Amino acid sequence: MEFLKAITANEAHELIQTLPVSLKTEKVDIDDVQGRVFAQDIVSVEAIPPFARSLVDGYAVKAKDTWGGKETNPVFLNLKGEVRIGEEAKTAVSEGDCVYMSTGSMVPEGGDAVVMQEYARCIPDAVEITKAVYQGENICYEGEDIQKGKIVLQRGKKITSFDTGVLAALGISKVPVYKRPDAAIISSGDEIVDIDEAPSFGKVRDINRYTVSGLLKEEGARVAFLGRAKDSIQQITEKLELTKDYDIILISGGSSKGERDFIRASIEGLGGEIIFHGINIKPGKPTIFGKLFGKPVFGLPGHPGSCAMVTVRFVLPLVRRLQGKIIYGERTARGILTTNVPSSYGIEEYVRVTLEKTDESRLVTPIFSKSAVISSLAQADGYIIVPEGTEGLEKGETVKVYFF
Amino acid sequence: MEFLKAITANEAHELIQTLPVSLKTEKVDIDDVQGRVFAQDIVSVEAIPPFARSLVDGYAVKAKDTWGGKETNPVFLNLKGEVRIGEEAKTAVSEGDCVYMSTGSMVPEGGDAVVMQEYARCIPDAVEITKAVYQGENICYEGEDIQKGKIVLQRGKKITSFDTGVLAALGISKVPVYKRPDAAIISSGDEIVDIDEAPSFGKVRDINRYTVSGLLKEEGARVAFLGRAKDSIQQITEKLELTKDYDIILISGGSSKGERDFIRASIEGLGGEIIFHGINIKPGKPTIFGKLFGKPVFGLPGHPGSCAMVTVRFVLPLVRRLQGKIIYGERTARGILTTNVPSSYGIEEYVRVTLEKTDESRLVTPIFSKSAVISSLAQADGYIIVPEGTEGLEKGETVKVYFF
Repeated sequence: MEFLKAITANEAHELIQTLPVSLKTEKVDIDDVQGRVFAQDIVSVEAIPPFARSLVDGYAVKAKDTWGGKETNPVFLNLKGEVRIGEEAKTAVSEGDCVYMSTGSMVPEGGDAVVMQEYARCIPDAVEITKAVYQGENICYEGEDIQKGKIVLQRGKKITSFDTGVLAALGISKVPVYKRPDAAIISSGDEIVDIDEAPSFGKVRDINRYTVSGLLKEEGARVAFLGRAKDSIQQITEKLELTKDYDIILISGGSSKGERDFIRASIEGLGGEIIFHGINIKPGKPTIFGKLFGKPVFGLPGHPGSCAMVTVRFVLPLVRRLQGKIIYGERTARGILTTNVPSSYGIEEYVRVTLEKTDESRLVTPIFSKSAVISSLAQADGYIIVPEGTEGLEKGETVKVYFF
Repeated sequence: MEFLKAITANEAHELIQTLPVSLKTEKVDIDDVQGRVFAQDIVSVEAIPPFARSLVDGYAVKAKDTWGGKETNPVFLNLKGEVRIGEEAKTAVSEGDCVYMSTGSMVPEGGDAVVMQEYARCIPDAVEITKAVYQGENICYEGEDIQKGKIVLQRGKKITSFDTGVLAALGISKVPVYKRPDAAIISSGDEIVDIDEAPSFGKVRDINRYTVSGLLKEEGARVAFLGRAKDSIQQITEKLELTKDYDIILISGGSSKGERDFIRASIEGLGGEIIFHGINIKPGKPTIFGKLFGKPVFGLPGHPGSCAMVTVRFVLPLVRRLQGKIIYGERTARGILTTNVPSSYGIEEYVRVTLEKTDESRLVTPIFSKSAVISSLAQADGYIIVPEGTEGLEKGETVKVYFF
């Protein structure tokens, strides 16, 4: 009997992350660009703000004219007019002068600070200033937000709400982004039935279709479910033939040795290549990775818990790469283990945990459950990794939690 | 001159979070349910798995029959047949017997453990077992994932990929969720021009439309931009009249006293009510909150940086409530301040920060920038809060970072 020649988790990552992928780009309207990934550095072609703006309602002045001014001994300045919001400032501020500003108004030539109106009293044609200001006070200078000619947003960054604000400031309404990868999802297994079927004895509903789709959609992929195949080379091959136009192919199932062989044989039968078959991880050992029609293909474990963990650890990093996401911060936290976690030497193990925040620390509690179990994933906040070179982790140890 | 009678941040939260809202529910297909919020507790109507399943390829046995079995002195069991995947187990396991299992196969009556095939050798009509198993080993029992009659997913929880897996396991393809709130967004200000216009001197492009829309969409709202209004009661009123069918109304602008008065007067002119006008926070002081057509209405500051922060701190919690999200964990981290942060007594201040993770600690570095600035939000990882009762925070202090 041929057993799997499993590789280490690090070897698997290396093989997956060095697989060449080709990225396509497109221009997308700013309204739909959130969550996408910049395909170019965004360079500011103008300064933001484009002119010095007042940050308050008040009076543009020369700061040194206000020095010494206080409530009991105000400074008097001549009122030379007003700059309305949205209009060009035409009256310069000379020594001894002031000009009325609304918040957002353009600060006139010669003005180097704005006195808030709370510290000014208007008397006919003059203003009493009751508080000194420093140079630059209450002004946002030209280019203070964004300098002209600077890279303001980087290629490979996922676009946030705030980034759309920066794009809007610069007048960029069509945004260069990478195309979203198209993922094909297939479920296999004689025991798998559709969610709307009442499973007869021995059958179970198709869970992996939904968890895998959901995880990929969250990561930015477009997902198509191509249906279910029974455990036969013919049926699996028929489904795989439909995947030619996709950027990544995911087929779950193959929990048992026989089924795994069908998936492997079907990929090879279509001219595909198996890059590895089996990773020394728990859960998720029987994972297959290869190339089919020049695209990455994963054979994911059938157990729902294993399938979801392998998707999180091994598929999603590739999905990120397929959309050019190179600036990416994993969401992690550190906390203290509340109990021992036994593990096997030579296996990298992923243990679902809950994280409880207290004022002083964060407590990490493992949820021990079998690989088939899906409900504990829904309850978990994240997972910890027990490295392959240990036989477990000890209560009280500080561990890194990877959030789902 | 009438100044704002600003309230504290806590008073503002209290007034916003106690405003009664009415929630509508709908049933949504499982394929589109991710990110929505459960409108009912989900109770399991069946056990998952619905029968005891083998977790490995191997042999169902009575565990005690294997005790003492080892490589050098195997135990012999009679092979009574096989349970294929997806079929009902009909052959019981009696003392001295074993039945071949595939991963996922139904464990027959009488079997209380499964021996992995790596520890079994098949000889004609019998099997040599070379390793003992404990009771329950390699079996996922009926209900071990989800017990029948249990609340498995709670009302008010945002639906994750893993939750869709649980729904699929239970055969729930139409999911009861709260309707997404509809938000109306209006920009106001004489200085604001469309993103595609080349702003003439004194004008700026509409940034708030995009940041506010983006933040609300991320939080699950549906967003409609109703256009821009100049600083006039007539124009603002015309726009506000379009908001009758929305669940929440957001109008940005009103940075200057005059503009704020237009927004306030327009809301009151339409029969609305101002609940507060001004919060002792920085940035974001000139925030308006009220009721119009029985719906919450916010007058957001015009400065892009202020507008975004007020949306994050004060609008999003209400948006969560408008979709029934009651189970919600704020994403936070603790870290050490790398520099002093001065602040004013009596003002709750939000300071944008970057967070740098090292092996031993997390370093929190403030990005000091004026309220008008949007680019620093795009660079920041999150923000810290300087409480109103202090005059700042000191270098070396441990602070809580709220992630964007």
